[in-house]
Amino acid sequence: MSDTVRLYDLAGEDDDLRFSPNCWRTRLALAHKGVPVETVAWRFTEKDSIARSGQGKVPVLVVGDLWLYESWDIAEYLEDHFPQAPSLFGGAVGRATARFVNQWASEVLHPAVARCIIGDIPALLHPKDRDYFRTTREAAFGRSLESIAAEREPALAALRQTLAPLRGVLARQHFVAGAEPAYADHAVFGAFQWARVLGTKLAAADDAVSAWVERMLDAYGGLARNATCVAPMV
Amino acid sequence: MSDTVRLYDLAGEDDDLRFSPNCWRTRLALAHKGVPVETVAWRFTEKDSIARSGQGKVPVLVVGDLWLYESWDIAEYLEDHFPQAPSLFGGAVGRATARFVNQWASEVLHPAVARCIIGDIPALLHPKDRDYFRTTREAAFGRSLESIAAEREPALAALRQTLAPLRGVLARQHFVAGAEPAYADHAVFGAFQWARVLGTKLAAADDAVSAWVERMLDAYGGLARNATCVAPMV
Repeated sequence: MSDTVRLYDLAGEDDDLRFSPNCWRTRLALAHKGVPVETVAWRFTEKDSIARSGQGKVPVLVVGDLWLYESWDIAEYLEDHFPQAPSLFGGAVGRATARFVNQWASEVLHPAVARCIIGDIPALLHPKDRDYFRTTREAAFGRSLESIAAEREPALAALRQTLAPLRGVLARQHFVAGAEPAYADHAVFGAFQWARVLGTKLAAADDAVSAWVERMLDAYGGLARNATCVAPMV
Repeated sequence: MSDTVRLYDLAGEDDDLRFSPNCWRTRLALAHKGVPVETVAWRFTEKDSIARSGQGKVPVLVVGDLWLYESWDIAEYLEDHFPQAPSLFGGAVGRATARFVNQWASEVLHPAVARCIIGDIPALLHPKDRDYFRTTREAAFGRSLESIAAEREPALAALRQTLAPLRGVLARQHFVAGAEPAYADHAVFGAFQWARVLGTKLAAADDAVSAWVERMLDAYGGLARNATCVAPMV
């Protein structure tokens, strides 16, 4: 495969502010497979530039003539097409089981994190994205962004309860996937990087989850740690 | 290994009513490994009979001189000591990832199921267990069993929301572990068998989760389907 792989990656007004949890899953999966990637700063309203994928959301990964989308489907593609590189799943059972972790992150963790950080997002978006973001998110939550933002503290407390199963696992092993990170970690860590890039640490300092976040920040040559954030992170 | 394996298995007043979700995990894992087991009907207050395990809860699995406890640790033991039998985890990454599923079932699913069925339990217990059960569970929930039971309908609605990540997975694959059941399925299914033995179907008939429950009831020669229940189940 000699084609350059290209990733359409959600950005804020600042081209370098890359905060999509789903795009981070793909960035980490590409790094895990050792696949070089050229990222393209993309905004919510730039539907035309990814129209060839047949839908309107990122990540979109372009490999030759293939336009791939949906972070889970991209991970499966990478696993199947780069079989010599380190495995994302550790076999068929690991793949199936990682899908549960992925679903939990998408359906439980992402909404819980969104309630903690959504108020910070509009000001960081490209101006052309702001109406789109407000309209779609207020429809999804059924309330104004301001009313969600006003409940940030209880949302953070609720999120930390939501982390219970992750905490229970990480108290016993270094990564969700075991001794080394793999896609089960990428699937979950995307949400933590989302919040971090936007200036929020989700887990308390003494939480086993925070120690894992640090390990994930160091993984893959510090890929996630070196990302541009809105505020300097310790 | 020629020793007979013995499982202390929680029972109601009826010796044959075996309803512990954690014991069901072990029953299914033993069946998966093809390990014959002799189960012993055990009640909550029979701490003396399992004292050699060094703690007071079941499942307790006795293999020769070994007294094993904690369903997850028992599964790891079975995987490591019966390596020729079908794998419970499909390798190291699958094992680590299944631990997340197991934690989610223990920390999120079990309490949500308990809120749906706890009111049915005291009448089915051996009389000597009733005070123990009420005292420990009312302390854990911080309220009376009657007040929990009065909210059965909203608890069932909440449980069905809790099932979202499981539903998302089972809409796409036959088992949590993929094409065939493995420990990630046992870890979750224990809760469904707990409710079923006590007379409650947790998932709606048209839920992808219900189709999986039926597959799990048929697995291992119908081990779970053939269990004694308090009411005939369709």
